[in-house]
Amino acid sequence: MNTNNFFSDDKVDLEILRKRAYSMRWAVLDKDVIPFSSADPDFMPAPEITNAMIEYIKGGYMSYTPSTGMIGLRESISEGIMKRKNEKSKPELIIPTDSAARGMKNIADSLLEKGDEAIVFDPVDLLFAISVRKAGATPVFYECSRTTDEDWDFSDLEELITPKTKMICFCNPHNPLGLLYSRKALQQILDIANKHNLYIMNDEVWSDIIYKDATFNSLLSFPEDEIKNVLTVYGYSKGFGIPGLRAGFIVCQTQELFDKIFVISGSDATIGGVASVTQVAMMACFNESYYWVDEYIKHLQNNRDYVYKRLSAMPGIKPTKQEATFVSFFDITETGVESDDFAKKILEEQKVFLVPGNKKWFGPSAYGKVRLCYATSHAILKEGLDRIEQGVLNITK
Amino acid sequence: MNTNNFFSDDKVDLEILRKRAYSMRWAVLDKDVIPFSSADPDFMPAPEITNAMIEYIKGGYMSYTPSTGMIGLRESISEGIMKRKNEKSKPELIIPTDSAARGMKNIADSLLEKGDEAIVFDPVDLLFAISVRKAGATPVFYECSRTTDEDWDFSDLEELITPKTKMICFCNPHNPLGLLYSRKALQQILDIANKHNLYIMNDEVWSDIIYKDATFNSLLSFPEDEIKNVLTVYGYSKGFGIPGLRAGFIVCQTQELFDKIFVISGSDATIGGVASVTQVAMMACFNESYYWVDEYIKHLQNNRDYVYKRLSAMPGIKPTKQEATFVSFFDITETGVESDDFAKKILEEQKVFLVPGNKKWFGPSAYGKVRLCYATSHAILKEGLDRIEQGVLNITK
Repeated sequence: MNTNNFFSDDKVDLEILRKRAYSMRWAVLDKDVIPFSSADPDFMPAPEITNAMIEYIKGGYMSYTPSTGMIGLRESISEGIMKRKNEKSKPELIIPTDSAARGMKNIADSLLEKGDEAIVFDPVDLLFAISVRKAGATPVFYECSRTTDEDWDFSDLEELITPKTKMICFCNPHNPLGLLYSRKALQQILDIANKHNLYIMNDEVWSDIIYKDATFNSLLSFPEDEIKNVLTVYGYSKGFGIPGLRAGFIVCQTQELFDKIFVISGSDATIGGVASVTQVAMMACFNESYYWVDEYIKHLQNNRDYVYKRLSAMPGIKPTKQEATFVSFFDITETGVESDDFAKKILEEQKVFLVPGNKKWFGPSAYGKVRLCYATSHAILKEGLDRIEQGVLNITK
Repeated sequence: MNTNNFFSDDKVDLEILRKRAYSMRWAVLDKDVIPFSSADPDFMPAPEITNAMIEYIKGGYMSYTPSTGMIGLRESISEGIMKRKNEKSKPELIIPTDSAARGMKNIADSLLEKGDEAIVFDPVDLLFAISVRKAGATPVFYECSRTTDEDWDFSDLEELITPKTKMICFCNPHNPLGLLYSRKALQQILDIANKHNLYIMNDEVWSDIIYKDATFNSLLSFPEDEIKNVLTVYGYSKGFGIPGLRAGFIVCQTQELFDKIFVISGSDATIGGVASVTQVAMMACFNESYYWVDEYIKHLQNNRDYVYKRLSAMPGIKPTKQEATFVSFFDITETGVESDDFAKKILEEQKVFLVPGNKKWFGPSAYGKVRLCYATSHAILKEGLDRIEQGVLNITK
């Protein structure tokens, strides 16, 4: 397989994207707008994934799969995360889910009750707070940030813990900051959680997009007796670019927690589950397509560096350099406008769609920030950044 | 398209079924066992469905679809059910769901609270009681049965209604009895529900398998102001034979109920939803594949008549003739053994897997019954019935 050209400029097919890419992207915007909005790529997934699906469909039958997933699926997951990320897991304690979001909801529904509190890292992906609230509990935001030069310090996290606290909602790598955690930082979180007997909802949906020279550490590489209450969620949408297929899983550490979450997920009664064709895609991802992810990361790293360089040169803009993820969450405070206004101006005047760092999407401490997704071609990225630069010059002139 | 041969003996591919057909079927049973168990067919779905999926996948991108489903999906549903079943609906009040089971759960979660009661027809598909219980409410079983010679009389249904009653869970056509409802019978249910201000969970998962000379009437063909509180659930698994794809929808009657159920379904936040490839299959079902369903019904009607004839000739067995569905729910009381023992003996001695009519699967009044699924080829059906006959002779000799 010639892999050099998966991410060249001509591999972005706008004709198809304009029919298929929803969620604030090509299919819902005016033709002249460039969407740097949802974290969904402008590239097609690895051919191994689509080929495996086609082969399966050619077999004709679309029968019920086992309630815990097709034979080989959970083994593929367990072996895949060990090989790639040194993550220990037992296949029999994995629950396939139709998206990471569903996994988060299942965990929250299983372990939180009305009146409970869950600590949610802030800024954060909106799905943590949504899941917690849907379970009837209250999210308590923990403001956290760091630059890439220093390690995290979570010692003040403990101050937020009350007798009502049941869970810490934790995103590794951190979205939208694009940052990783040292083993020391993870140990600190684990120790706090274990001291207070808290569950950890460990969202690793971004764990396959890690840049060169950065090191991803997972809670699943810590000793078994320290991570009993860690519930890990993964989705295939970011690393493999297949959000429309609705593919994800939960890794549990104990039979007790597996049993509880499995029943709440409805997988025991065909209420929950993953489409058979999607399960085939999931196996093709981990078993055959990491070579594609490696090429993807190389491309994204070039994009990251280019975005950083370009944003750094714009007046009033302070970008950070991501260690992971393909989103830049940059500071616009010094331009003198608010995030919502900034995004609005850039959209209306320059026809580039950015996501404003407001409470609704990223929690209270996203104030003064804007998010830019750069999972696109160099050509589109350049055009979009040219336009943003013009917009920033207009704003700050 | 030559449709004559979709259901001939050689169209059952046991090699593939032994790999794919789970849920108490070929893939989980000994090689010499014939499964007349889960209501999942031994035939491949219409080629239009699989071809449409393959075409979509060849387009490469697996992007996010709209949260209410792909453009055209809800229109396809609304037009499809009107054309085929005279069912009125508004596309904007339809919620695509990843199975009818999920739809039932979403409805129960949205409208029932702890302490509430929901009346569940008995015998019944297990998913009604499961959904009600998962929502924290209590199922109250309403024993109902009739022969094909008389109409239903639901007048005693009202006796079960208490101040706690919030919903009537209703299956049309009736599974496992395989019977239909006259407009008069439906009016009776509607009147009772409206008099007491109750929701109706209207499960129409079997509404595409209707035999010749029988008439399917839907609650969705009644005047709008009489069905405001009717929530209709449909799944593509029975009529189109694609349970593994996890495809279904909910039809709401009011914006208020749509809003409530849509949020509970999580479709507003990527927690809920249907895989893009499955949505393509759903459109191919209603837009292109009803010709296949018509052929399927012809085949199933021959099977139904054959099953009825064969079972009628066995000592102690009293079958009924289905107006709908592809399951026979027959009485074995006069053989002198209980349902569980009967099914066990037939499985162990004769290697045919039947589902015993016990509480767990079908509610309390399934006592003395056994269910046989006949969505298979004539050859397999004959072989299975030969074996059952031998088993019954052994039991009653």
